[in-house]
Amino acid sequence: MKISARNQIPGTVKMMKKGPVTTEVVISIAGGLEIVSTITTYSAEHMKLKEGAKVYAVMKASEVIVGID
Amino acid sequence: MKISARNQIPGTVKMMKKGPVTTEVVISIAGGLEIVSTITTYSAEHMKLKEGAKVYAVMKASEVIVGID
Amino acid sequence: MKISARNQIPGTVKMMKKGPVTTEVVISIAGGLEIVSTITTYSAEHMKLKEGAKVYAVMKASEVIVGID
Amino acid sequence: MKISARNQIPGTVKMMKKGPVTTEVVISIAGGLEIVSTITTYSAEHMKLKEGAKVYAVMKASEVIVGID
Amino acid sequence: MKISARNQIPGTVKMMKKGPVTTEVVISIAGGLEIVSTITTYSAEHMKLKEGAKVYAVMKASEVIVGID
Amino acid sequence: MKISARNQIPGTVKMMKKGPVTTEVVISIAGGLEIVSTITTYSAEHMKLKEGAKVYAVMKASEVIVGID
Repeated sequence: MKISARNQIPGTVKMMKKGPVTTEVVISIAGGLEIVSTITTYSAEHMKLKEGAKVYAVMKASEVIVGID
Repeated sequence: MKISARNQIPGTVKMMKKGPVTTEVVISIAGGLEIVSTITTYSAEHMKLKEGAKVYAVMKASEVIVGID
Repeated sequence: MKISARNQIPGTVKMMKKGPVTTEVVISIAGGLEIVSTITTYSAEHMKLKEGAKVYAVMKASEVIVGID
Repeated sequence: MKISARNQIPGTVKMMKKGPVTTEVVISIAGGLEIVSTITTYSAEHMKLKEGAKVYAVMKASEVIVGID
Repeated sequence: MKISARNQIPGTVKMMKKGPVTTEVVISIAGGLEIVSTITTYSAEHMKLKEGAKVYAVMKASEVIVGID
Repeated sequence: MKISARNQIPGTVKMMKKGPVTTEVVISIAGGLEIVSTITTYSAEHMKLKEGAKVYAVMKASEVIVGID
């Protein structure tokens, strides 16, 4: 599926922390940076996510805040 | 201000497209990638955002979807 | 791409209203219901969305509120 | 209360999975489809949600992504 | 309709700025504070929102970031 | 960091409920009102949030729904 979400950043799952309902997924991206996602534990299991998996961090443009120092 | 949003990705404003209410901000980040944000035109003007400005793309972990090929 | 977003509702684009930055997309789904989405006009054009197109309305579970009468 | 959220899809609670903070609610809607929501366990209890309850899945238009095959 | 969104802050519409697709609504709340919302212009018109109207600013708990100085 | 999010409401942490992945934070604001946020437990610990702490509830304008009675 191709989606309207403009932001699809490639990376690798570095760490996962599973709760009963929610799972935290830490994704390593370019430049030594990380993006953290929380998804349902159901989705994490259904997608068979595990450390080392190649993934995309996907964000809708309307969810992204802009910060300045 | 320090915020709970886990994702604060540094970058540079590459392009802005201003509408009457909403402004689209394209941010160049590491690895030749881009993150797109839509914010209010009021905020864009209030923050004096312009092309070339050093910014952060900020996303709450709960807003990030995980994709796989 | 397969995504963690649990909600992927099939439908047909019924109407589109394009603004300079944001486009409103009305999607007809099963049961005579509609789901409305706002995306960037860039995405709408890039995906070549038009009335009659077969699409999915995709929502992350954390974005869905539950209401009762 | 009448709300600005354009998407208010009627359905029935099919399954709930309660965690200490977050509860997952699976809602059956028209066409044999499902919408999944995660809300606070506090809200689930406060609203007395249970399987079989008539509910609405409510989403703001800006949260809905459009996908195509 | 009663909704699971935990945050329903009462206020008064102080200002509206209508774009072709998106309308910005500035809401005065207690303590001399303001909350800004962007909704579809369709919703703003459908709800007959205008300056001085008594409204609620409604936010899902998962959308709220916590900041500290 | 200064952020584009228009809504930054000052308050005091009244209660916290920690789960393995997600923590619920109840913030007292002006007018005897409360705003509830769910953040990752990692963030709550990293920010050393505790009851009585002075904080801001931060919301992007696009996340705020408008309700009327």
